[in-house]
Amino acid sequence: MAVYKSDQQDILFNLLDVLNITEHEEYGFDESSVKEILGEFDKFVENEIYPTRQKSDVEGVKLTDDGVIVPEYFKDLNKKFYEMGWFALGQPEEIGGSPVPEALSTACLSLSAAANCGWSMYPGLTKGALSVMRLVGDDYVKNTYIEPIMNGTWGGTMCLTEAGAGSDVGNLNTTAKPMDSKEGWWKIKGTKIFISSGESDLYENNIHLVLARTPEGKPGPKGISLFVVPRFRVNADGSLGESNDVRCSGIEHKMGIHASATCVMNFGDNNECEGYLIGEEFDGMKNMFIMMNQARLDVGVQGESQANLAYELTKQYVQERTQFRTEIINLPDVKRMILKMRAMSRGLRSLTLYTANLFDKAHKDEKYNSIIGLLVPICKSFGSDQGFNVAVDAIQCHGGYGFCTEYGIEQFARDTKIASLYEGTNGIQAIDLVTRKILKDKGAALRELSEDIFKTSNKLSDEFSFERGVFSKALAAAQEAMGFIGKKAKAGEMNIVLQNCMDFLNLSSHIVVAWRLMESAWIADEKMESAQSDAEKEYLESKIVDFKIYCSHYLVQSIALAKTITSLDQDITKYKV
Amino acid sequence: MAVYKSDQQDILFNLLDVLNITEHEEYGFDESSVKEILGEFDKFVENEIYPTRQKSDVEGVKLTDDGVIVPEYFKDLNKKFYEMGWFALGQPEEIGGSPVPEALSTACLSLSAAANCGWSMYPGLTKGALSVMRLVGDDYVKNTYIEPIMNGTWGGTMCLTEAGAGSDVGNLNTTAKPMDSKEGWWKIKGTKIFISSGESDLYENNIHLVLARTPEGKPGPKGISLFVVPRFRVNADGSLGESNDVRCSGIEHKMGIHASATCVMNFGDNNECEGYLIGEEFDGMKNMFIMMNQARLDVGVQGESQANLAYELTKQYVQERTQFRTEIINLPDVKRMILKMRAMSRGLRSLTLYTANLFDKAHKDEKYNSIIGLLVPICKSFGSDQGFNVAVDAIQCHGGYGFCTEYGIEQFARDTKIASLYEGTNGIQAIDLVTRKILKDKGAALRELSEDIFKTSNKLSDEFSFERGVFSKALAAAQEAMGFIGKKAKAGEMNIVLQNCMDFLNLSSHIVVAWRLMESAWIADEKMESAQSDAEKEYLESKIVDFKIYCSHYLVQSIALAKTITSLDQDITKYKV
Repeated sequence: MAVYKSDQQDILFNLLDVLNITEHEEYGFDESSVKEILGEFDKFVENEIYPTRQKSDVEGVKLTDDGVIVPEYFKDLNKKFYEMGWFALGQPEEIGGSPVPEALSTACLSLSAAANCGWSMYPGLTKGALSVMRLVGDDYVKNTYIEPIMNGTWGGTMCLTEAGAGSDVGNLNTTAKPMDSKEGWWKIKGTKIFISSGESDLYENNIHLVLARTPEGKPGPKGISLFVVPRFRVNADGSLGESNDVRCSGIEHKMGIHASATCVMNFGDNNECEGYLIGEEFDGMKNMFIMMNQARLDVGVQGESQANLAYELTKQYVQERTQFRTEIINLPDVKRMILKMRAMSRGLRSLTLYTANLFDKAHKDEKYNSIIGLLVPICKSFGSDQGFNVAVDAIQCHGGYGFCTEYGIEQFARDTKIASLYEGTNGIQAIDLVTRKILKDKGAALRELSEDIFKTSNKLSDEFSFERGVFSKALAAAQEAMGFIGKKAKAGEMNIVLQNCMDFLNLSSHIVVAWRLMESAWIADEKMESAQSDAEKEYLESKIVDFKIYCSHYLVQSIALAKTITSLDQDITKYKV
Repeated sequence: MAVYKSDQQDILFNLLDVLNITEHEEYGFDESSVKEILGEFDKFVENEIYPTRQKSDVEGVKLTDDGVIVPEYFKDLNKKFYEMGWFALGQPEEIGGSPVPEALSTACLSLSAAANCGWSMYPGLTKGALSVMRLVGDDYVKNTYIEPIMNGTWGGTMCLTEAGAGSDVGNLNTTAKPMDSKEGWWKIKGTKIFISSGESDLYENNIHLVLARTPEGKPGPKGISLFVVPRFRVNADGSLGESNDVRCSGIEHKMGIHASATCVMNFGDNNECEGYLIGEEFDGMKNMFIMMNQARLDVGVQGESQANLAYELTKQYVQERTQFRTEIINLPDVKRMILKMRAMSRGLRSLTLYTANLFDKAHKDEKYNSIIGLLVPICKSFGSDQGFNVAVDAIQCHGGYGFCTEYGIEQFARDTKIASLYEGTNGIQAIDLVTRKILKDKGAALRELSEDIFKTSNKLSDEFSFERGVFSKALAAAQEAMGFIGKKAKAGEMNIVLQNCMDFLNLSSHIVVAWRLMESAWIADEKMESAQSDAEKEYLESKIVDFKIYCSHYLVQSIALAKTITSLDQDITKYKV
């Protein structure tokens, strides 16, 4: 049976050789401290998180009369996770965190999400809620909630979705009415669905961030405000008070992430649910999405993480399994699958870490924000969809064993699929990319990114003439496709624009992933001569192979995608089904 | 919640307008009898099979001290299925069957497999075993086993796989030793894994067809013989005797088809397991695979069937679900997904029914066998892979609901994935296609098929000029790719051939599916003027749209696949991982 393995070498190559994250001097990190944190965290992942992966998938969560119960061993895991300071990793110093470069904290997130995607949702959602409280909350909110969240006593959630308001969040029905008796407090009433970590016995209190409409809130997204709603009320001294009329009335049985409690949450069944307004009234949507880029990148990382661990386990399997008197990795069709899996999963890693690193750059120079705006929907959508595809390839490489629960492989596919759906479906990411990030600024950010890409491709030596050829064809195809979409937008034929967003997102995703692998190949090529060992040389060669395989097996698809976009000059909503 | 629906109109269009199955006069079927059987069977599927789909996925099968237990309601379902004569449908008259045109029985199989893929495995495997006994068995075998199988008292299985012999079946370790005391009988000893329907309380006896090596059997596939091994011995009067030392020692927990018992089967733990040689000694592989084309087509149909039902349910959902003040089918990105799902699932239906119909043609003229040889691995591999993709799209169209078990949508993806793995992995199908079906006859069958395709494309009117353009580009791409592969084969660079088989299979699959949709579009176009109603006209128009969408969204990919094949002029097994 395959054992846990992460590709430390490739992660460090990205962090140090490609991204040079030690240049962010504000963190005071040198190469050895990057290696140490990554190595220590990986040990924690291997010894504490990964062993819970399969068993918590089988056990799942349960709704009982006492609320939602998680697997018992999660409590021990959580205790260690907080005590060893891993929750604090990447949090700002002023709330007791340990700041690290963004790309490093993203690399760590990837390791933990890979090792147990379901469990990782509990601290993950808590971090999201914490960030909103830290950035928007007043002193009362900060003083009351941040410390117990940082020390792992309390957890957090984000409560957006309702049965009739999924993608269309602005259409929600939950209400908030001001309480005469309590300044700043409102009576909350409504039902939310699909609330990840909505309730669990992993934390003593669950602090919900709830979107609701106040009496003067207009219909639609602009009439919505954001409230902090604890499961148990909090006394003035910080101790837990009585129940706040918040109840989990159901949990979803799902395809995957069985260990994550996906809850139906009832607020105010007995009109006793109190919420505290956070931020200004009517600013709810803006404040809820304050960390949207981070949240969407993190979902892309979930896909990337599942792909990379699925690849590592599959690699071991095909190296051990014999058929036809040979290890099956020597069979050309299996080798094809495994090389494609590696190219894609490492490509997604390159892209997500690159994007995370831009967050640090943007702290110093705002110009990076427009590139982040382009890359985040790509990371989220392409990372989740292709992460899923790699997970499916992992099943295929395992033959019948891949289909059996016992091997833990099919779980990757089941766990990954959710990433295409939540935090804005991938369809919404594609529309965001094309309409808000490209058409709105008349392609300025896209042109800037294209120039960066073009610069990298000019560095390639003649050894890569085929790849350079595919690359320029792909860029030309992208230009043609964008030209078509731009023309339709100008003509007001918005349906034709919208029906092509997903294909354009995939087209451009292939280009940016190939670009990140290209830069890696170029750096590897440069480093080859000074390689210290055969192992290092072999690794550097693998980076060149990744780029070649990506070009021949994936990047070529961008040309077909451009054809799809430009070929159907019709509004397809007119077709009947 | 969506309700069961099959697309009778499209199935009948294929059977009657495209394939004209009434021309097989030996069956004595006219249009009304085709419609009647399909309609009656569909009622049975809707009322009896489909209601068991989701609950049997949740309940699954259990291994108890008394053996494997299936959901209780399967017994009632089975009783009706056999009593109403549906098991006999498509079986030859001499064993009490009701022969129907092959394409009609395949259409019926598709309906039942769609409605409960797990359950359909029990009669499905039984049919496979029955065919082998009917075609290879001697009088003893026929007289003993066929009647109780036909009336549903006994079930059948195919026992090939062992832990160390999956794709490499010829490497198996199960042994058979002749019994001095009993003419024709052998002592069987060994363990088989992944045996679908290996044991269950659905039948009073399980009749296993077991591959085993006799003492004089050489290593490898040529030393293997086939045995009939009943779970309970059969007395001379046909009544059940004592246990035959056959035991299910474990069942697999799987990603999907939970209702199908996937068994580890122990034969002869106490040296008391007796098997009867069927066919000649050493002819085991040949005899086991006597119905291989049928079996592989049927697996492709599983993929096709899941895709079509997933499409029908998803269509209903997106027509009902509102977001942003409209039914979401009106959102261009959702419309894109739904049109792609329809084009692909109907395209797979066209292809599988066309192939089934060739079986009837081949009964009269052997020349069709070479085309069947080409199309069967395509149906199996492309049908299962693309069926899975459509099922995944169904999840995406449902948003978060698609991920929840309650809606029954994610089950399609879980149930379909197995079809890419069993009955020869899809990698094996691709190698079969390229090496045994194309290179071996120097491309003769492929040329014949290409001519058929070319003829159809010449019929297209100018309305389809874009599609004709894509089509000729795709054909040219296929030619180029095959030229590359042929050259490598001639040069003895077999690894390069083998690493490209899957991409070539997908390339040619897109072409044949587009070809089947093209012929449908052409026929629909011809029939448009004489359409009897608006509904018929709308349906005929949808066939034209299917073809257009397939060309713009799928067929274009064949051009990229050809690039993949011709671009990497290297033996990738040399790359290290």
